[in-house]
Amino acid sequence: MESVIRSSAKICPFMHSATGSMQSVKALKNANLPAIAQQCPFMGKAMEQRRGYASGASGAGSGAAAAAPSTSSASANSSADVNASADVVDHATQEASFDYKGLFDSELAKKRMDKSYRFFNNINRLAKEFPMAHRKTEDDKVTVWCSNDYLALSKNQEVIEVMKKTLDKYGAGAGGTRNIAGHNKHALQLEAELATLHKKEGALAFSSCFVANDAVISLLGQKIKDLVIFSDELNHASMIVGIKHAYTKKHIFKHNNLEQLEELLAMYPKSTPKLIAFESVYSMSGSVADIDKICDLAEKYGALTFLDEVHAVGLYGPHGAGVAEHCNFDAHRKAGIASPEFRTVMDRVDMITGTLGKSFGTVGGYVAGSSQLIDWIRSYAPGFIFTTTLPPSVMAGAAEAIRYQRSHMNLRQDQQKHTTYVKNGLADMGIPVTPNPSHIVPVLVGNPHLAKEASDILMDKHRIYVQAINFPTVARGTERLRITPTPGHTNDLSDILIDALEDVWSTLQLPRVRDWEAQGGLLGVGDPNHVPQPNLWTQDQLDLTNDDLHPNVKQPVVEQLEVSSGIRW
Amino acid sequence: MESVIRSSAKICPFMHSATGSMQSVKALKNANLPAIAQQCPFMGKAMEQRRGYASGASGAGSGAAAAAPSTSSASANSSADVNASADVVDHATQEASFDYKGLFDSELAKKRMDKSYRFFNNINRLAKEFPMAHRKTEDDKVTVWCSNDYLALSKNQEVIEVMKKTLDKYGAGAGGTRNIAGHNKHALQLEAELATLHKKEGALAFSSCFVANDAVISLLGQKIKDLVIFSDELNHASMIVGIKHAYTKKHIFKHNNLEQLEELLAMYPKSTPKLIAFESVYSMSGSVADIDKICDLAEKYGALTFLDEVHAVGLYGPHGAGVAEHCNFDAHRKAGIASPEFRTVMDRVDMITGTLGKSFGTVGGYVAGSSQLIDWIRSYAPGFIFTTTLPPSVMAGAAEAIRYQRSHMNLRQDQQKHTTYVKNGLADMGIPVTPNPSHIVPVLVGNPHLAKEASDILMDKHRIYVQAINFPTVARGTERLRITPTPGHTNDLSDILIDALEDVWSTLQLPRVRDWEAQGGLLGVGDPNHVPQPNLWTQDQLDLTNDDLHPNVKQPVVEQLEVSSGIRW
Repeated sequence: MESVIRSSAKICPFMHSATGSMQSVKALKNANLPAIAQQCPFMGKAMEQRRGYASGASGAGSGAAAAAPSTSSASANSSADVNASADVVDHATQEASFDYKGLFDSELAKKRMDKSYRFFNNINRLAKEFPMAHRKTEDDKVTVWCSNDYLALSKNQEVIEVMKKTLDKYGAGAGGTRNIAGHNKHALQLEAELATLHKKEGALAFSSCFVANDAVISLLGQKIKDLVIFSDELNHASMIVGIKHAYTKKHIFKHNNLEQLEELLAMYPKSTPKLIAFESVYSMSGSVADIDKICDLAEKYGALTFLDEVHAVGLYGPHGAGVAEHCNFDAHRKAGIASPEFRTVMDRVDMITGTLGKSFGTVGGYVAGSSQLIDWIRSYAPGFIFTTTLPPSVMAGAAEAIRYQRSHMNLRQDQQKHTTYVKNGLADMGIPVTPNPSHIVPVLVGNPHLAKEASDILMDKHRIYVQAINFPTVARGTERLRITPTPGHTNDLSDILIDALEDVWSTLQLPRVRDWEAQGGLLGVGDPNHVPQPNLWTQDQLDLTNDDLHPNVKQPVVEQLEVSSGIRW
Repeated sequence: MESVIRSSAKICPFMHSATGSMQSVKALKNANLPAIAQQCPFMGKAMEQRRGYASGASGAGSGAAAAAPSTSSASANSSADVNASADVVDHATQEASFDYKGLFDSELAKKRMDKSYRFFNNINRLAKEFPMAHRKTEDDKVTVWCSNDYLALSKNQEVIEVMKKTLDKYGAGAGGTRNIAGHNKHALQLEAELATLHKKEGALAFSSCFVANDAVISLLGQKIKDLVIFSDELNHASMIVGIKHAYTKKHIFKHNNLEQLEELLAMYPKSTPKLIAFESVYSMSGSVADIDKICDLAEKYGALTFLDEVHAVGLYGPHGAGVAEHCNFDAHRKAGIASPEFRTVMDRVDMITGTLGKSFGTVGGYVAGSSQLIDWIRSYAPGFIFTTTLPPSVMAGAAEAIRYQRSHMNLRQDQQKHTTYVKNGLADMGIPVTPNPSHIVPVLVGNPHLAKEASDILMDKHRIYVQAINFPTVARGTERLRITPTPGHTNDLSDILIDALEDVWSTLQLPRVRDWEAQGGLLGVGDPNHVPQPNLWTQDQLDLTNDDLHPNVKQPVVEQLEVSSGIRW
């Protein structure tokens, strides 16, 4: 029988070895598997012999075992073999190992089959030719229309100069964790800037905001006994991972559906600890949460609020603190870095996370909150404790970017104006953009293969880079091109983009707004019941200038925040 | 009764509110809690009334409820009150929220009480005065003896120059994830250097090695059904977190105990998927794994091997690929960046993780392995997919550091020589160093309070910075000062350090080797049964020069590794 297996393995395109074939075959679950298997001289026989077992057994190994018995049960005697093998104790035999390669292979095959296999484009964004990048060779240039360098601060000369000076003086890396030789004035100053930006008592920097979200949410779940987490269904992967790692009860509420959120909250006594986890701007749809109302619910039902402002910092509020700041735009604008004299929406949020890697042009993430909360996270979160501090130059650059953008409201305003220009241009062409009140331009394609093809044509024919966004970043059937204008994406560049998209839509015969309308609409596109929301930025706000900001926003934060006795200046 | 609670809360030093006090009291669990509580006019009565419940009930709220009833059960009627509150449905009432602040407070109090509360020292390491750093003010300088910048590459001029040039040309940040605008030649070149260093087909860069370890191990557990993980008890927090997130069966084996590991492996059929997760150099003890023998076991029992070389890269092997490379020192030395003609120990390891933040002077982490494995991780790990790429300048600097150290074996050799000098000097003084064959100098104190005091005296009196290492980084009772010499820590500096430690040991009357001996020994110190291991670096290896390396190690890796069709050059 061993030789039969071996020769079968050579013939069969799915079989690398026993278990690998199981995985490969599983990957083919949408095909008519029994029909395929019966055509196979080996599988066909095995299936006949084991039909009783396969149809009766449930769970691990049932169907798959029928299609491809493992070597340990390759004698095809009966299902008993499979169970018997679990009792074998002398394993240093010639028995085969688990087929790891077969599993990896079949998982990769699955991705290729459902078009979720990803191709990374080699994009070298040029600081002096923003928003251009070169591909493999320096003369092969494209315009980048999908980066999250929203304010173009990664090319900002003041940021770069600070980083170079810091490199010269303090070297390339921090050389340790925050606790062991890696705590320094750059961490202190960055965290002071972050706390000041969000008008919180403290802030803590992490390797990334993925790490910050995961670390903070999982810690809350693990440390607050019986915590119940309420999570928006469109929350970012990092929050989903954090919730999974919280090992506690969770409820997912429909996107931005506060009625459902309230129903879920009301299921528990007020004294039950709760956490509402949500974002301000949802990155792939551009939709925006009603932060104030969520805080109302949190207060009513005794919940903590966790707000991810990753795609909002730099872009909203007079000083770029995000949508929470934007909710009290004028009060914050008049107060500058000081706090208005009433309790703002930003004050109501218990913890805000953000990134240094998008609007703030560098890399890293953070959480801002009360000094007590920050000290607690600092003291208990493994993802903060056991990792090397960000390089001094990165922290100094991020702090400089935060200061710079705080006093340069025009960057945010230009970004908004360019966004509106692109959205209007596409609307004129009937090219479908899922409607939203923010800076994201999600152009709906609705098919993974076509989204990739559209992206390829833009790149190869038009020298425009817009990445196709497929599953798992967005739900299947809602694949899109996600366009992110910046202050550097002038109207001339936008005209070129719009013409290129018109060409792609015609070439690939992609559905236009009227086509979605005919299908009843999708994500607000062509949906007769969709109620459009006004832009977050009002015309009055867009008409302001940097001179309308308080003078104190131009200064670095000199006060030395005493977040806790454990963080020494 | 409400008023009694309120007045009690004012009097009682542990009580901030109902739930907060529960936590504070829990934190006092090592004190004679009943005795303290009985002295309290309110608690004493409550304890009497509820003694039946407290002694009978198990789990949540039993003992704590007795000591500090929550407001909802403050009438002290019976345990039924506690349960009744869970059934209340109308919660938009005046009922109190969970006391989050009280919980944070008591958790922080707990840390202060058991001396695990951490004080971060403000250490600004100066590139041009290595190993000096300034504290708060620039004239307040100290010698850093505990950084993980093992080869001083963070101050290396070639590394810094490459980073500055990259900043000028490509800006401060990558601006996106690897899939969306954040894939570039710097990522490709770094990963090619990493794959070449470890002589693997591919490598993948992460935000940190904490993230790499967590992402890779958890993915393996989540994707390989029924995987059993075998983990060394001293594995780093990041691996422990990854194993926890793997949601699969695990066995912890005693540190470096291969007999026990084999017993555990033998419990399962060879066909059961298994992962052995271990480190090469354990950072807090300096102990070293027998990689070859672990690979023997892995082959015998059909396990994958996951090796963390975080504290070994840069330091072992002719080219700094780590202890796995060191196992076939001469063969690798003669082959340079090519592969020896036999299967080396490094070839036998399925995946190797490492950091860019210690010997390689910057920040970030990585995994190296087969192209298939790398493509699979790239395709499935959320911690890789959903986060901003490291800045181009960081990746370029890390790649330069890897190249530089590869051809500068003298850095590793000097590091070893300086380590031996310090170890010998301390041995002469009877100051206890836990014996090990590596570059770590763990000076045993054995008490958290005294370890911190020793560190404070070194800093304040001797201007030497050595961080005290307390729980949870090391087990309670094994607190230590962890000293890490570098090529920049000359014998003159070592003499000053040794004298300073002698002064601290005398001042604080800390136990010397003979004192540990009298107690039967600890961690090999003063242990009559301890068998010392020879240093990993032999004298013959230390006598070689850079000229004994193959000339090909000086070149950047120009070949463009085709790791997968998904990663485009």
